Amino acid sequence: MSKKKTKKYVYFFGGGKADGKGDMKDLLGGKGAGLAEMTNLKIPVPAGFTITTESCNEYFKAGKKYSTGLWEEVLENLKKVEKAMGMKFGDSVNPLLVSVRSGAKFSMPGMMDTVLNLGLNETTMNALIKKTGNERFVYDAYRRLITMFGNIVMGIDRQKFEKAIEEIKIKRGVHLDTDLTVGDLKSLVEEFKIIYKRGTGEDFPTDPYEQLKKAINAVFGSWFGDRAVKYRKINDIPDDLGTACNIQSMIFGNLGENSGTGVGFTRDPSTGQKKFFAECLINAQGEDVVAGIRTPLRIEELKKRLPKAYKELYSIYKKLEKHYKDMLDIEFTVQEGKLYMLQTRVGKRTAQSALKIAIDMVKEKLIDKKTALLRIDPSQLDQMLHPMIDPKAQIKVIAKGLPASPGAAVGTVVFTAEDAERAAEKVKKVILVRTETSPEDIGGMHAAQGVLTARGGMTSHAAVVARGMGKCCVAGCGAININEVQRYFTVNDLIVKEGDYITLNGTTGEVILGEAPLVTPALTGEFGTFMKWVDEFRKLGVRTNADTPHDAKVARDFGAEGIGLCRTEHMFFEAERIKVVREMILADDKEGRKRALARLLPMQKSDFIGIFREMHGLPVTIRLLDPPLHEFLPHTDEELRELAHEMEVPFEKLKAKNKSLHESNPMLGHRGCRLGVTYPEIYEMQVQAIIEAACELSKEKVKVIPEIMIPLVGHVNEFTMLKDLTKKIAEEVKAKYKANVKYSIGTMIELPRAAITADEIAKEAEFFSFGTNDLTQTVYGLSRDDAGNFLPYYVEKGVLEDDPFITLDQKGVGQVIKIGIEKGRSVRRDLKIGICGEHGGDPKSVEFCHKAGMNYVSCSPYRVPIARLAAAHAALKEKIKKDLSKSTV
Amino acid sequence: MSKKKTKKYVYFFGGGKADGKGDMKDLLGGKGAGLAEMTNLKIPVPAGFTITTESCNEYFKAGKKYSTGLWEEVLENLKKVEKAMGMKFGDSVNPLLVSVRSGAKFSMPGMMDTVLNLGLNETTMNALIKKTGNERFVYDAYRRLITMFGNIVMGIDRQKFEKAIEEIKIKRGVHLDTDLTVGDLKSLVEEFKIIYKRGTGEDFPTDPYEQLKKAINAVFGSWFGDRAVKYRKINDIPDDLGTACNIQSMIFGNLGENSGTGVGFTRDPSTGQKKFFAECLINAQGEDVVAGIRTPLRIEELKKRLPKAYKELYSIYKKLEKHYKDMLDIEFTVQEGKLYMLQTRVGKRTAQSALKIAIDMVKEKLIDKKTALLRIDPSQLDQMLHPMIDPKAQIKVIAKGLPASPGAAVGTVVFTAEDAERAAEKVKKVILVRTETSPEDIGGMHAAQGVLTARGGMTSHAAVVARGMGKCCVAGCGAININEVQRYFTVNDLIVKEGDYITLNGTTGEVILGEAPLVTPALTGEFGTFMKWVDEFRKLGVRTNADTPHDAKVARDFGAEGIGLCRTEHMFFEAERIKVVREMILADDKEGRKRALARLLPMQKSDFIGIFREMHGLPVTIRLLDPPLHEFLPHTDEELRELAHEMEVPFEKLKAKNKSLHESNPMLGHRGCRLGVTYPEIYEMQVQAIIEAACELSKEKVKVIPEIMIPLVGHVNEFTMLKDLTKKIAEEVKAKYKANVKYSIGTMIELPRAAITADEIAKEAEFFSFGTNDLTQTVYGLSRDDAGNFLPYYVEKGVLEDDPFITLDQKGVGQVIKIGIEKGRSVRRDLKIGICGEHGGDPKSVEFCHKAGMNYVSCSPYRVPIARLAAAHAALKEKIKKDLSKSTV
Repeated sequence: MSKKKTKKYVYFFGGGKADGKGDMKDLLGGKGAGLAEMTNLKIPVPAGFTITTESCNEYFKAGKKYSTGLWEEVLENLKKVEKAMGMKFGDSVNPLLVSVRSGAKFSMPGMMDTVLNLGLNETTMNALIKKTGNERFVYDAYRRLITMFGNIVMGIDRQKFEKAIEEIKIKRGVHLDTDLTVGDLKSLVEEFKIIYKRGTGEDFPTDPYEQLKKAINAVFGSWFGDRAVKYRKINDIPDDLGTACNIQSMIFGNLGENSGTGVGFTRDPSTGQKKFFAECLINAQGEDVVAGIRTPLRIEELKKRLPKAYKELYSIYKKLEKHYKDMLDIEFTVQEGKLYMLQTRVGKRTAQSALKIAIDMVKEKLIDKKTALLRIDPSQLDQMLHPMIDPKAQIKVIAKGLPASPGAAVGTVVFTAEDAERAAEKVKKVILVRTETSPEDIGGMHAAQGVLTARGGMTSHAAVVARGMGKCCVAGCGAININEVQRYFTVNDLIVKEGDYITLNGTTGEVILGEAPLVTPALTGEFGTFMKWVDEFRKLGVRTNADTPHDAKVARDFGAEGIGLCRTEHMFFEAERIKVVREMILADDKEGRKRALARLLPMQKSDFIGIFREMHGLPVTIRLLDPPLHEFLPHTDEELRELAHEMEVPFEKLKAKNKSLHESNPMLGHRGCRLGVTYPEIYEMQVQAIIEAACELSKEKVKVIPEIMIPLVGHVNEFTMLKDLTKKIAEEVKAKYKANVKYSIGTMIELPRAAITADEIAKEAEFFSFGTNDLTQTVYGLSRDDAGNFLPYYVEKGVLEDDPFITLDQKGVGQVIKIGIEKGRSVRRDLKIGICGEHGGDPKSVEFCHKAGMNYVSCSPYRVPIARLAAAHAALKEKIKKDLSKSTV
Repeated sequence: MSKKKTKKYVYFFGGGKADGKGDMKDLLGGKGAGLAEMTNLKIPVPAGFTITTESCNEYFKAGKKYSTGLWEEVLENLKKVEKAMGMKFGDSVNPLLVSVRSGAKFSMPGMMDTVLNLGLNETTMNALIKKTGNERFVYDAYRRLITMFGNIVMGIDRQKFEKAIEEIKIKRGVHLDTDLTVGDLKSLVEEFKIIYKRGTGEDFPTDPYEQLKKAINAVFGSWFGDRAVKYRKINDIPDDLGTACNIQSMIFGNLGENSGTGVGFTRDPSTGQKKFFAECLINAQGEDVVAGIRTPLRIEELKKRLPKAYKELYSIYKKLEKHYKDMLDIEFTVQEGKLYMLQTRVGKRTAQSALKIAIDMVKEKLIDKKTALLRIDPSQLDQMLHPMIDPKAQIKVIAKGLPASPGAAVGTVVFTAEDAERAAEKVKKVILVRTETSPEDIGGMHAAQGVLTARGGMTSHAAVVARGMGKCCVAGCGAININEVQRYFTVNDLIVKEGDYITLNGTTGEVILGEAPLVTPALTGEFGTFMKWVDEFRKLGVRTNADTPHDAKVARDFGAEGIGLCRTEHMFFEAERIKVVREMILADDKEGRKRALARLLPMQKSDFIGIFREMHGLPVTIRLLDPPLHEFLPHTDEELRELAHEMEVPFEKLKAKNKSLHESNPMLGHRGCRLGVTYPEIYEMQVQAIIEAACELSKEKVKVIPEIMIPLVGHVNEFTMLKDLTKKIAEEVKAKYKANVKYSIGTMIELPRAAITADEIAKEAEFFSFGTNDLTQTVYGLSRDDAGNFLPYYVEKGVLEDDPFITLDQKGVGQVIKIGIEKGRSVRRDLKIGICGEHGGDPKSVEFCHKAGMNYVSCSPYRVPIARLAAAHAALKEKIKKDLSKSTV
């Protein structure tokens, strides 16, 4: 049955030559390709070989059988390894030990871990004892082998082995594994063998080849392990990629004072400074560095102790960085004076460091600007724009909520918006702690340093408003129980009272007891240089969501090219105005409403004048009133009574009116353009304020480009009716002022029906702005305010990959958006299309918007730089893809 | 510039011959085609002619100018009319008067009304006075001409004319127009001419041809009138159909005792009995019959007074019915002994009558079964299935709400569900009056004769549940103010106290004071015959939404072919169960929930046994728990306190739990499969109950076909997770019972995301059921519970054509459904697809479902016959369309 062998299943690396290369990730997996690449660079890597992903696929196709010739190839390559290392697998004199690791194209949770020390049995152990004179080392290696093999290959609960160690430690009265004697280890090995037999029904294999084969099978098997399959399903990774399997010689840094091990970075991962940044331990294993039992030495110590190895390491780090053109994270081991590189990969770094390294490497001509841009993850930029808790500080985390708005804040606890405002007057720094916030709390949120809520998700009121303000916020922190009346909150047994200090970390969601020290990253000249490069490459416009002149200015300074969403209702909440707004809402008839609106008109107009002035020369999209009217009314009887007194109307009447406005599902209720249709006088006032503001400024030569946006349109008739109304008022105002202000009228697409009938709507509307917050809510049938009860669980359990309120759900909501764009442009080719939901500042979503052909994204001021970079990334990635497809044609 | 004339613009009818025919509605409009048809049948019709729709279109294309030759053709045909009638237009001896009417292909609101008596001026008036010797008649005709011409043709406010009449009546001290003398009429005519001049700046035209031309222009102009344009837009009627214009000789029934007028039906419109059913007035105009000033005579009186005319009329009615093959509504006028038919059209009739006529006509071989089926409007059937208020009864309507569930009910007013139940125990008939109902009221609703709510729309809880029960309901009656504590409600000044009698008309939405007499239409043998015919033609299956064995039985008797939606939660509300349900909800942990669920299991199982037994041999789709858990908890502190006492837990704890379950938008909250994902034990219990019930019945040879439906799926992962859970439990139960019950697992498609990703979901799901209530809510972003504040206004103002909760919104929601069906069937060709929203019983929506290729619709039991007929209509219409397109190929 043996067929003629045509395929190569195994790729050797060692002795300065590898069968494979760094770009063969499909066949060799990421790890295998990397090991081959280092070997080819003549960097000393412990010899080994990689079994291809193809072998894995054939293994499963054949019903878990090796392809013809595979095992023979493994054995041949093992011979090569023996030769390269000058040792023999299973030998009674100079035995080779190997490690086995999985390695797919993409790193994947659920894939098999490492099994070290394969090849140990009585024979090889004796040989090693003789060779190293270190019996303890050998037995320690053996018990590790049984544990790893038993657990990872054979599926025995690791706890069983751990428990045995614990017991012997108690018996011996010691605390650390390292305190165990050779004798202890020997008896532990015997016990481990019993655990192994109980768990598998077999003796621990003494044949090194059997050990190896079983480990390879386990690597293959892990490809179809539950977690890996689930991960691939969620991430749309095809099952037929397969995993490679890496077999590599073991190297030991714990063979005496001329051995050692270390890790490091090729530049400073915190600052980006160009210097070798590493640590080492003498006579130690890699695990010991990680475990943190011994304090590592600065790398200069290696220079003193093992100067030859140090010199080689130094030249290798230079070579590697030059080859990979990036800052690298490296691992090395010195075995009896000889240096081996065990791993190199791109190193993790802080945002500051990333930016400096990218810019330096462009200056060093290592990389070009495009590469530099792609090196910075847009979401990293966030770190640079907000104060942060000093990473060196000792902190006490008492609870964790959602990281709703990044940055850090310190202050004393207050429980009401009024208290926050009062404290701010006295220049006191406070943290506003609320069960959840409502529009009435805006003043208090503004006054506070940060906001902590017990309920609500990433797009709850608190989160959205805080992000808009660039203010730190931890939301939905279910662990805190607030007693607003007695003014304290508890976390389990801990009581935090009004006036106590807490610190919030809005980037991680942590709530910290006391005053943590903060650091404010400076927006250095490098940031400016970088953002200039960003704008050279991006095609997508970036606007901001801003409701005040202050926010508009902040956003413009961050590079916003206009306002994509100005929410007029936020202007209604200021103390003086809310009264008039309530009068309007509670009026008995249209005339009463009109009287109140007439008083609101100059206030709204002055807002628009301020915003227009800041945005001179840039477009400003203003959304007409959107929220249901009851949002402007008080919620408790007490407040209602107060209001009744103020307004001089009977409490009962007010209460009845309030009740009549109550809605079961306000999100789907009487709001948006439905208000405009039923109470046209409200929109009339708003349009009048907008156009009057524009006309007055045009006399001062301020260039105003107003875009009037009708919210929550579901049916084209709603839009047409309100467009006619808008035009009528606007033309009247223009005639009165004899000013020629140009304005456009468009709509938010935030209901599935609007997207589905976008062709009808685009006949009438001059622009679309996708309101993806509400669109996500309606497409998913998911209220962002209520999702906190189950959405975190969904994400945790992998039912959903991402919170769709943070990252746009491309398969569902994205499809609806695409339908809307396609239908819209089918009748109006030059339809201007943007997005103004929270997703406008999320990098993955920005890429989607670029691909979908939108004109711009709009996000909160502090996310503008992020969106700009994400837009550049999207454009660059697209170009790379295009170039690639050209080159393969 | 005159081109050679090739088109015929004007079609004559008169003297027994017409240029046109009955099937030329495109060119002649409905009215013109009808007049031509009658003329061709040799039925005496006052001569006239029709200007084609094409002329109208060309008129607008040419910038409101007549096509070359049109006016000449009009004049030629006027000559023919003169010849046929033996009179002359504008003549000083025997003048012809004409009427002008619009007449499009479809009858359309906003199109021009009739202008009568054109051709009157001083000359013709004198001639007519001489000819008739009736000066009063002539001046009366003239003042009518000025009014109609002034108002309809020239746009003068009709009130101005009315006011002048009022003034003269006051001055003369009379009440009726008919009391005015010739002198009064003469001075009125002078005043009308002044009003006309003031309104138009011109004298009233004395040239009959000018009068005619202006009237024709007005007919054309009305095609682009605001209301007509809007109507066409909403109804998707193309603007380029145009309207025809009918000019017809005037005939007068008020020229003496040998003149007269009348209206009638060819069969009894109430019962369908085959007999001539007409009334007449001697020496009167058609308007007088309608105005109801004089009491009309039975048609037998005409036989005595004008036997010749009667004889001719009798033979014409026979002829017409034979020709049109339908029961007709006719209008006739006798002018000086000569009979003219003025109109005939298909007559309106009651449901009973329609059914009898259709069946009789099949027996008479006038029509075939298909035609008979198409004659009955499905929604008419509703009348036959519910008690109705005796049409002859005198009633006092005190308020009007939404016609939420048809039929009528009489009873004394109660304000709580408990009172309703208590009354029912004493066999007292009550009407339950609530602000709105909640699931807790179900017992009371069941006990009451009918339900009246002050709030909520056509798909509010009250409406949906009442329709399900076949119980009369008037919902959202905003005019009533309920004082539940003091137990009365008011409508303006009227106070209706507990114990007072009211009557509800759920078909019209009327609330009536006192006990109105009811009649119960019998489901006669004719109904059965008819429904048998229905099933011969329909292709779409019809199932029912039923939650109890009783409902299942009712529906099966009405012809349901299975249950399309069995809502398990309704079973949770019975007194004994709700306590256990609450225990489950309020449990601290999974174990506590499981204990309560174990007690619910036998209860649910017994429900399913009852339902399965009734539906022996038919499929039963059971939806797992859908509503948010807080729906099962009490709402007020008082009730909570009571519950706390009962459950022996602290009130504060209960209150906190209740608060933690509160949701801002429960419609978009923690419900449906989201409950199943987070509390799998609930669904596990339900699946166990279903499969145990099926297994037990299978031992008794009852054929059970359970279809388990997972609600509110948005992402395929939700479905897959719960499908796996369902299968696991089901297989365990089957193994325990050693029974081979077949079941299928599918999902509701009620979120846009589910439809958009239907291809992913259909890979896993065996059936889809479109939940169009929720789908409409999410596609439109519209809460049915809150829509009452603006939706009625939308429909009234024409922003929306229909309430989308009553008639499926085909352009929006329908598109989403089509996407879902297409994507679903793209991966699973035989995917079973149904609909289980309220739309399943709406005829227009049923037609949509047929066209969209669904397998079945499911509706409340009392709507099953309606859905069956609607399905037959859809199939027949499709066949007719197909045959038509074949015949034109």
